[in-house]
Amino acid sequence: MVGIIAVHCGAGTHNSDLFKEYKRLTNKACLKAIQVLDNGGTSLEAVREAVMILENDPLTNSGFGSNLTLDGIVENDASVMDGKTLSFGGCGSIKRVKNPVALAYDLCIKQTIDLPLGLIPPSLLVGDGGLAYAKKIGLQIVNHEDLVSRKARRQFTRYKNMLDRVVQQRQLDTVGAVCVDEYGEVAAACSSGGILLKRPGRVGQAALYASGTWADSSEKTKQHSVAVCTTGCGEHLVQTLLAKEIADDLKSSTYLTECLHQTMNDKFLRSKHLQNVRIKLAGALVLHKDKTTGDVVLLWGHSTHSMFVGYMGTEDEESKVITNISNNTSMYISVISLYSSISLFYVYFY
Amino acid sequence: MVGIIAVHCGAGTHNSDLFKEYKRLTNKACLKAIQVLDNGGTSLEAVREAVMILENDPLTNSGFGSNLTLDGIVENDASVMDGKTLSFGGCGSIKRVKNPVALAYDLCIKQTIDLPLGLIPPSLLVGDGGLAYAKKIGLQIVNHEDLVSRKARRQFTRYKNMLDRVVQQRQLDTVGAVCVDEYGEVAAACSSGGILLKRPGRVGQAALYASGTWADSSEKTKQHSVAVCTTGCGEHLVQTLLAKEIADDLKSSTYLTECLHQTMNDKFLRSKHLQNVRIKLAGALVLHKDKTTGDVVLLWGHSTHSMFVGYMGTEDEESKVITNISNNTSMYISVISLYSSISLFYVYFY
Repeated sequence: MVGIIAVHCGAGTHNSDLFKEYKRLTNKACLKAIQVLDNGGTSLEAVREAVMILENDPLTNSGFGSNLTLDGIVENDASVMDGKTLSFGGCGSIKRVKNPVALAYDLCIKQTIDLPLGLIPPSLLVGDGGLAYAKKIGLQIVNHEDLVSRKARRQFTRYKNMLDRVVQQRQLDTVGAVCVDEYGEVAAACSSGGILLKRPGRVGQAALYASGTWADSSEKTKQHSVAVCTTGCGEHLVQTLLAKEIADDLKSSTYLTECLHQTMNDKFLRSKHLQNVRIKLAGALVLHKDKTTGDVVLLWGHSTHSMFVGYMGTEDEESKVITNISNNTSMYISVISLYSSISLFYVYFY
Repeated sequence: MVGIIAVHCGAGTHNSDLFKEYKRLTNKACLKAIQVLDNGGTSLEAVREAVMILENDPLTNSGFGSNLTLDGIVENDASVMDGKTLSFGGCGSIKRVKNPVALAYDLCIKQTIDLPLGLIPPSLLVGDGGLAYAKKIGLQIVNHEDLVSRKARRQFTRYKNMLDRVVQQRQLDTVGAVCVDEYGEVAAACSSGGILLKRPGRVGQAALYASGTWADSSEKTKQHSVAVCTTGCGEHLVQTLLAKEIADDLKSSTYLTECLHQTMNDKFLRSKHLQNVRIKLAGALVLHKDKTTGDVVLLWGHSTHSMFVGYMGTEDEESKVITNISNNTSMYISVISLYSSISLFYVYFY
């Protein structure tokens, strides 16, 4: 059995001039996660490390280089979910923490700790309280300016002075990772700076349970492990609880590609919760393992122009990278069958 | 057709010496909501007004009189959901805003507004950003101390100095309201100060989508409208997405009481997400309307010692109040059939 990591750099409109840069970055993130697995680390540790690499790079809208709020600073959301324990940790509207995903990870692994006075370990910390706790546990704290890349500052200045242009074609560039280890345990993580010029204090799907991440390998009698991370318009991903819906549907399905396509259409594009929404942007990265056959399938779908995905197995020397470009506005689904009896690579246009 | 409001003051261990006070307060909240309906207001406005009354009273753990955080101040969570539009608004870890539910309401009704630059109206605001926005829209802002009741200060001091006692028997006292108007449109709201000595920045179910509130009267072809608000341990209500689960199950069920019982048992007490949790505390207040027959049923269930519920119809002169006391640790379900062909009041002990 092998372990597999897959990461994405958001669904949106990726600048093709930067593909080489994206490839370098996703390869670096995959290599780091595989190193964690090779050293006996868990899938949860692997997704944390992969996402930290992505957060630290100015190319992505997470950690350093995130979009700026209306107030001109970086506020990050992040979350992780452990498929083995079903524990979740999230943080929202977090300032000055270099790696928000590390804060989410800490909250997640402490979910099962017994606290005095019957207190319950928090699963979601936000704002100043989140920053204070991050300091307390020794995470790296930086100045506001240290999270602002030149590109982010430039875009902020440009759009702040411009009110007549629609921004939905811009890159979304949030990041996420899904991982399965050699025991079949899965984990998911995501991290996001949110939309450019967002209102200070706004929290999106990347911080929130069932919306930005889902991972479930808890049922030992069941055949499937599933990990999902989503990207796109935060509010819409929250309203549709998309990460959980995708995982739930895939767990009871035989035809994975069709299932992902149907879920993203029925429960996102055609969701009654989004009936008044004109432009519906979402992407999902999914790792599915059939415990009986050992087959692992990597799937992703997006309603945006492009989605940048890298993946790697513990037996691989380097990561592979795929960028989907969709020129229509409907859902675009890709699937790769890894470590199966047959090796497949499908790309479906619906 | 009549409109109906129902409110609760939390599921927990209510002090029987205070029952008269709870009755006074819930009656005041119900009367206010009925006044809103009588004046042509929506069910969403009615639940906001009812919860504001509850927030302003030191008896409840919401708004003024909320439990204090480890830092000794009040941080509130609140949310509302509009069954007609399925819009949701929530706020978490909010300081100095006198009525957090009014902030949640504002975010909810602005969900469908088109913003410039393709920006999406936020559905969840937290921390300082939430406070700044509340100021901007003209909500009443007070000093930290103005939200601290004498009782809350006393309890904070007592428990802060005491680390050897379990607190789960204490009152939870968060508040919530569900309402159906004469057109069958439903809404739900809740507001909470969270657990005593919570970590600053912690956000619980009262702020979060699908966890603290649910309301759905959007499908004109379907027969049922359902509104739900939950109370109890925030992290566990988030992990089980309990408000949405209850509403989803009730919408496809004929036997409402049995359904609520089964959902709260299967999807809360026996949830795989809570398998490592020893003490599972939850309460849910539910309003269900069958659009075909016009029957309205009020149900509530709780795994705590007691739950305090008040309700009133637009044809009533005053509200009715019911307190359930359960001496066992399993789920306790009550149901009242209002404006049905037969008038019933059941209390089920399971």
